[in-house]
Amino acid sequence: MDTLPLELSYALDTFYFLMCTVLVMWMGAGFAMLESGLVRAKNTVEILNKNALLYGIACVVYLLVGYNIMYPSDPVNSWIPGLSFLLGDDHDAAAVLAGGDDAPYYSSMADFIFQAVFAAATMSIVSGAVAERMRLWPFLLFSVVMVSVIYPVEGYWKWGGGFLDQMGFKDFAGSVVVHMAGAAAALAAVILVGARKGKYGPKGEVLPIPGANLPMATLGMFILWMGWFGFNGGSELKIANVAEANAVAKIFVNTNAAAAGGMVAAALFARFLFGKTDLTMTINGALAGLVAITAEPLLPGAGMATLIGAVGGIVVVCSVLGLDKLRLDDPVGAVSVHGAAGIWGIFAVLLSNDEATFMGQLIGTVCVFAWMFVTTWLTLLVIKVAMGLRVSEEEEMEGMDVHECGMEAYPEFQRRN
Amino acid sequence: MDTLPLELSYALDTFYFLMCTVLVMWMGAGFAMLESGLVRAKNTVEILNKNALLYGIACVVYLLVGYNIMYPSDPVNSWIPGLSFLLGDDHDAAAVLAGGDDAPYYSSMADFIFQAVFAAATMSIVSGAVAERMRLWPFLLFSVVMVSVIYPVEGYWKWGGGFLDQMGFKDFAGSVVVHMAGAAAALAAVILVGARKGKYGPKGEVLPIPGANLPMATLGMFILWMGWFGFNGGSELKIANVAEANAVAKIFVNTNAAAAGGMVAAALFARFLFGKTDLTMTINGALAGLVAITAEPLLPGAGMATLIGAVGGIVVVCSVLGLDKLRLDDPVGAVSVHGAAGIWGIFAVLLSNDEATFMGQLIGTVCVFAWMFVTTWLTLLVIKVAMGLRVSEEEEMEGMDVHECGMEAYPEFQRRN
Amino acid sequence: MDTLPLELSYALDTFYFLMCTVLVMWMGAGFAMLESGLVRAKNTVEILNKNALLYGIACVVYLLVGYNIMYPSDPVNSWIPGLSFLLGDDHDAAAVLAGGDDAPYYSSMADFIFQAVFAAATMSIVSGAVAERMRLWPFLLFSVVMVSVIYPVEGYWKWGGGFLDQMGFKDFAGSVVVHMAGAAAALAAVILVGARKGKYGPKGEVLPIPGANLPMATLGMFILWMGWFGFNGGSELKIANVAEANAVAKIFVNTNAAAAGGMVAAALFARFLFGKTDLTMTINGALAGLVAITAEPLLPGAGMATLIGAVGGIVVVCSVLGLDKLRLDDPVGAVSVHGAAGIWGIFAVLLSNDEATFMGQLIGTVCVFAWMFVTTWLTLLVIKVAMGLRVSEEEEMEGMDVHECGMEAYPEFQRRN
Repeated sequence: MDTLPLELSYALDTFYFLMCTVLVMWMGAGFAMLESGLVRAKNTVEILNKNALLYGIACVVYLLVGYNIMYPSDPVNSWIPGLSFLLGDDHDAAAVLAGGDDAPYYSSMADFIFQAVFAAATMSIVSGAVAERMRLWPFLLFSVVMVSVIYPVEGYWKWGGGFLDQMGFKDFAGSVVVHMAGAAAALAAVILVGARKGKYGPKGEVLPIPGANLPMATLGMFILWMGWFGFNGGSELKIANVAEANAVAKIFVNTNAAAAGGMVAAALFARFLFGKTDLTMTINGALAGLVAITAEPLLPGAGMATLIGAVGGIVVVCSVLGLDKLRLDDPVGAVSVHGAAGIWGIFAVLLSNDEATFMGQLIGTVCVFAWMFVTTWLTLLVIKVAMGLRVSEEEEMEGMDVHECGMEAYPEFQRRN
Repeated sequence: MDTLPLELSYALDTFYFLMCTVLVMWMGAGFAMLESGLVRAKNTVEILNKNALLYGIACVVYLLVGYNIMYPSDPVNSWIPGLSFLLGDDHDAAAVLAGGDDAPYYSSMADFIFQAVFAAATMSIVSGAVAERMRLWPFLLFSVVMVSVIYPVEGYWKWGGGFLDQMGFKDFAGSVVVHMAGAAAALAAVILVGARKGKYGPKGEVLPIPGANLPMATLGMFILWMGWFGFNGGSELKIANVAEANAVAKIFVNTNAAAAGGMVAAALFARFLFGKTDLTMTINGALAGLVAITAEPLLPGAGMATLIGAVGGIVVVCSVLGLDKLRLDDPVGAVSVHGAAGIWGIFAVLLSNDEATFMGQLIGTVCVFAWMFVTTWLTLLVIKVAMGLRVSEEEEMEGMDVHECGMEAYPEFQRRN
Repeated sequence: MDTLPLELSYALDTFYFLMCTVLVMWMGAGFAMLESGLVRAKNTVEILNKNALLYGIACVVYLLVGYNIMYPSDPVNSWIPGLSFLLGDDHDAAAVLAGGDDAPYYSSMADFIFQAVFAAATMSIVSGAVAERMRLWPFLLFSVVMVSVIYPVEGYWKWGGGFLDQMGFKDFAGSVVVHMAGAAAALAAVILVGARKGKYGPKGEVLPIPGANLPMATLGMFILWMGWFGFNGGSELKIANVAEANAVAKIFVNTNAAAAGGMVAAALFARFLFGKTDLTMTINGALAGLVAITAEPLLPGAGMATLIGAVGGIVVVCSVLGLDKLRLDDPVGAVSVHGAAGIWGIFAVLLSNDEATFMGQLIGTVCVFAWMFVTTWLTLLVIKVAMGLRVSEEEEMEGMDVHECGMEAYPEFQRRN
């Protein structure tokens, strides 16, 4: 009977992890809807397949390999013989009830799945950037490599107790470790696969390629916003006492405030620049606000969080315009949302966290960027040689859906022209 | 060690608030999908922008102003210097662990964000009613005023401890305080902006203007239904003991029962009236059932809750037909769902709550309606003079999306005629 | 004060049930989106009406009749005078605080609503299989019979303590009791209503009838995946101690792993068979993985769960092709996903659960299949005589939406041909 409170504490923390896991898993749907709304109808089935399958592949390979690399000291994990997680046991009740600072306080299985959905989210960032021209299975093959090795290595550097963690790099829930990392991989892929046909005119003009279904894209934004409560809120890693409950609640407040700030700022800025209220900027502004607060959603006050998000919203609009100037074709703005706003977010930590240093944040960002960019580049080069990365010009004109998936997303609706 | 149970109680109640907050936040997506499905394709981007941005604006201004007005005695809040919430601290663990009836039992931050998403939901009710003709930024300017002052004042009357609460007005989760309040503002706006071109013929005939994407509208209904578990369930404000857990569970049962009753009744009634099973009535019937039970989701039995919802479903069908007779053009039925069913719900409290009185419910309803209608009317008049409320006839014909947002929701799909 | 831990335990278990209930309720939206995406545009409003209304009807009749039949010994339930649940009280705090193995540990109301959403999910399986030709109200009338009597009787056999439970039939969360049961009813209905016009050519060729909106179908898959965490996770029935928290977490891991395995395997297998990556197979593979693990999501390791799901993904592809060979027209693959993968799942229990026997699993499966198939057949025969089951040939050609619902799902989008 005396042990019941410790049991309840363990159960509550585990339940909190599992609910946050559900929310982060749900972000997979958010990416899928966002991207399927922002591409053209003829490439929609393919991007849906990419988003669905990358999530499935990420879950499988993170289980087999990635988690072992990222958290080598986890008790359910012993790197040799490698696949040990499959045989691992969860915490013994006796160890939990012994109490003390070293006692486990939540399920290892809950920890594993929370980390697994983070890995899938990182991979989801890439798919949108190479939409409408990168072939399906080469992309999925890349996702195998990225989620089993590339992401876990840099994740280990910070969250597994590696050198970035030891040198004081501060990234609470992953503005850099997840979001900018995904964006760096996306940028390498964008450069390697090249721009979509017709995106840039011969005189350097940027030609808009509007998305086919903006309600879907907006739904994606709302799903991601919802899921982010789990993404940031779960990264506190504990809720079962007064101080931790307050912390999680504050993270919820700040996460929401930053998203709101980013959305409103981006919409106003776009209205000012273009004279129109561009819905894609509204959407990307909210996401940029979320990315920006992710590095430190706990310490700022809610007003500060709103401002951090708002700057993120401005940054993303500038970045989208800037990338187009550089003729880097990112159909959904993934590099801008997750990369540019992620970098802003990692330095915004300096505004509220006294333990963070400019050099620490800079070194962490550079290391993660360099690692992700270079390893992605090399991996994709190998895949390019072996399988090719890009669809043929004819396939691109006719759409990837018919060629790669044998079906259309909206087979009954007549297209213009 | 002895204090662990009190800590866990605080953590569980806080976590319950936060999960309910996620569900209510998600209702923002529900309104966006519902409304984007029920308007014409040419006005879809605009209504998505309205729904997204009103949510963002609501979060910002409720933080800055609204919460201070609605809950002036909240510990994290001291009205002077006004923005104090941004600096506020959450409950001290010592105060929590002192125990006793006055000790705080959940995070103030969780309370704040739960209230903030309610404010956003109230505002979401208005957007649908003025869809397809009210300009974007005048609407958003109105949302600033409504969420920072208009809603918080009447919210204070009831939930902040004001005169309606003291005189015994009973409205558990806001059939009137949220839903009819939103509908009253919507009604004022509907009258001021006028009907859409082509909605009413010269001889008074009502011309249907069907929505462009009914799967989206249906998704919106399901999202709202899901979110309502948080809306009503969270309004119990505590779950962490046997009696409160039973209460929250009963609220879940009744909320679901009323939605089911409203949906089935409205569908049968529409089938009887029209000879066809009108999906928009199915949808609005479910929402009306939810609105109707919101004033008292705890005391009725599940059978009674089903009946309260069913009557709400009948009421909404009659109200939709009646408003069209009055040539009040509400494209999504928001005034009927939230207003007519909300009024039914507030009087249905008399069926199960002995402490409620007919006069108390009547006075509360009249006061909230009068306040919301008059202040909205005056605010919109000022905005009308300053900026104008309605798009030009040409813009209305061509669609708001191209004119206000510079893009189309479904740019590739050819339209009929 | 000493009783607080017991109160908290009750509250945490109740809250866990309620959150899982929300997730399973959400599966109703998943089925609606999946099916609305996989039918043709002209039958979309009708399938949305079916999915929405069956959910509402299920909630009403399960409350009135079904729950009483399925759980006759439940304390809030006493079969005579039949509708007693409506008057039932929840557990008394004193009984809870007495402790001991017989003391109630969570709210009866939470139990009721968790069971109610399972009943609705079972019914949802049927709607997709008879899409595009079975009339709306005959279908809904059948849903009244199925949820009030047919499903509860076999549910009682296993989960209410009936003979299948006593003979050792093992079905944790319902691969057979829910999924194959729904599929058996669906199969009877598919045979009785016959194939859609134009599905099978005169020489036995299978003509594809592609779905109108694949992003919606994909969204449906993600919703179902998300909801399944509640479906399987909640079926552990307790979380509030170390062992149970570990169990729920493991169920989350295995549920996710099986879905991932099923999706990837089905996509690879379809790519191998057809040379194209068929998105509908990706979707159905994930769902088949989920169905397959549902019979035993606790005992396998995560690697085993991935394999169980993967086999489910292969099974569903074969089953879809096989049913078409038999000219059994199931527009969304419901019989294959829930039936074939459900049967695989029930026997896969033998891989990890020593208490399960081949004969036990076989007898349970045969009994449930026979009961569901025969009673559905008889009920539909009666409805066929009384009202007719199928729309006229003219209505089928023109679409059910206009004839049955008086509206179109996408009224503005021009159709090809």
